[in-house]
Amino acid sequence: MSQLLLMYSNEQPSQAHIERLKILQVDVSVVVADTEEIAIRHAADTDIILGHRYLRQTLPHTQRLKWLQSTAAGPHHLLSSDLRRVNPILTRCTAFSDVVAWHAFTLALSLMRRIPEAVKAHQQGIWTHSPFNMLSFPQTAMVFGMGCIGRELAIILRRNGLTVLGVARKYSPEADAVCDELFYEKNDWLEHLHRADFCFITLPLTKNTYHLFDETVLHTLPQHAVLVNVGRGGVVDTDALVSTLQEGHLGGAALDVIDPVPSSSFDPVWAAPRLLITPKVAVFHPEHQKKLEAFIEDQVRRYLNGEKLLGIITINNLAEGD
Amino acid sequence: MSQLLLMYSNEQPSQAHIERLKILQVDVSVVVADTEEIAIRHAADTDIILGHRYLRQTLPHTQRLKWLQSTAAGPHHLLSSDLRRVNPILTRCTAFSDVVAWHAFTLALSLMRRIPEAVKAHQQGIWTHSPFNMLSFPQTAMVFGMGCIGRELAIILRRNGLTVLGVARKYSPEADAVCDELFYEKNDWLEHLHRADFCFITLPLTKNTYHLFDETVLHTLPQHAVLVNVGRGGVVDTDALVSTLQEGHLGGAALDVIDPVPSSSFDPVWAAPRLLITPKVAVFHPEHQKKLEAFIEDQVRRYLNGEKLLGIITINNLAEGD
Repeated sequence: MSQLLLMYSNEQPSQAHIERLKILQVDVSVVVADTEEIAIRHAADTDIILGHRYLRQTLPHTQRLKWLQSTAAGPHHLLSSDLRRVNPILTRCTAFSDVVAWHAFTLALSLMRRIPEAVKAHQQGIWTHSPFNMLSFPQTAMVFGMGCIGRELAIILRRNGLTVLGVARKYSPEADAVCDELFYEKNDWLEHLHRADFCFITLPLTKNTYHLFDETVLHTLPQHAVLVNVGRGGVVDTDALVSTLQEGHLGGAALDVIDPVPSSSFDPVWAAPRLLITPKVAVFHPEHQKKLEAFIEDQVRRYLNGEKLLGIITINNLAEGD
Repeated sequence: MSQLLLMYSNEQPSQAHIERLKILQVDVSVVVADTEEIAIRHAADTDIILGHRYLRQTLPHTQRLKWLQSTAAGPHHLLSSDLRRVNPILTRCTAFSDVVAWHAFTLALSLMRRIPEAVKAHQQGIWTHSPFNMLSFPQTAMVFGMGCIGRELAIILRRNGLTVLGVARKYSPEADAVCDELFYEKNDWLEHLHRADFCFITLPLTKNTYHLFDETVLHTLPQHAVLVNVGRGGVVDTDALVSTLQEGHLGGAALDVIDPVPSSSFDPVWAAPRLLITPKVAVFHPEHQKKLEAFIEDQVRRYLNGEKLLGIITINNLAEGD
């Protein structure tokens, strides 16, 4: 008997999704926790938690939890001493890699074609060519992080004629297959950073990636480079990025994640030049719930059949963040 | 002896460009007209005009003009009774097809990922998810016009997994090679318009294309479709587009060309919802002059060698426009 505890963060699971989970195997029971109280009450008998809405409250009460499937692409915010102690298999949601990769590419292209300036001129009702300072079409892109988003992005970039330099923690055949060159050590990639017309960050937040993009790294990028972060906000030192842009360095930057999120409209990040901000919408998709449910059903099927799960995270590599 | 008269519109020709033109053949002479007076004075002895800056003033004085190379992608604004009478070979500039195609694709992706809404929220210093109503990644694109821009765009779209329905005046093997399906008659393409997630206009302005996108055609596009015009403004009935968007039809529209250009900041086009406007910058490129000069040198070389010129326009197909 396997008990699944569903606690999704935004939308409630659809009835059809619950039914499909129930019939995956004869001895599966499904509990939907739409309150913290329900989650805690069923914690002790739960083998698998899907979603992480009441995780902190639930974890202390678990007794046989074997697997936690997060609905986030980067579940570092779930890290706690309880999670380390219970130590379930932890998997992230990789269902939206293509959506995030396309958002990242769109952000870079938008900066290249100066779409934000056009929107600002539009709002003032001005039909004018200046100050459009278009960027050349890029030849080389550096992609930090060779997880499923980074690899998907590398595929899109190469398909469109770019040379892709990948940065990964360690060699993997999957990463090797989608990059022209791969780098593992900071000494190595820093030496090649000057080649990056586009620089994409798809990194998780870990002890090693926190503020990896500091003043020195930002200034090592070429003057005309476009920086895009769709990974985690903490990977970029926001203050350093703002001052780098103010100094006139970089062709532009786009952030879908910022750590911390600007707390007011007076936050200096809003006023930085050539900065495009989208408020953590890279994962947005009109059929988000449908895609999420299909992904989770496939994961549960894999688990029950003893197949390899997608998106396994090593808890020791996680750092706490936003 | 062939006399070239250079009269480019924006930037003066570089000295290196002039020198390269002079040595293409022994009996070539090059005149640079940086004033109207110089252009008129040399008109009678000119065989080839490169650029069209003082064309209207110069044409009446030409006696042996054989070829006019415009620096515009769509030279319909050059049409005059003098041009019909003199009837030179007319060629347009096809050097920026790739630049325009990428601008068009970027406009469509920007609307899909709701970049304009993000820029507006940014300007107010608001970090929020709503009202982001993202569009699904498109499966099918319709491309109107199978000139060099339309074909380049079709190649980009297919490379990225889209099915491309092309609309052309007549069959050509070049268009056939880059489209999944081709349509020639309005009766035919109108029947398939409902399939278009993205709809791109790269058409020239002719008697047949003027206000081709009227209320009926716009409403035949699907509710969620994104319309992009990088051809000529007159192809779209702007008033009909504004009211279509106001009614809530179309996922969004992007115009790089509008006819007439909004004359004040009170023009109603600025207030239309889900409309992204870039002020005729699709052709912009940081190395514009370098690319233009290389293209023209290649064209002159072709002409002198008796090879086929690129971008030949039939004057009878032109309509007068913006």
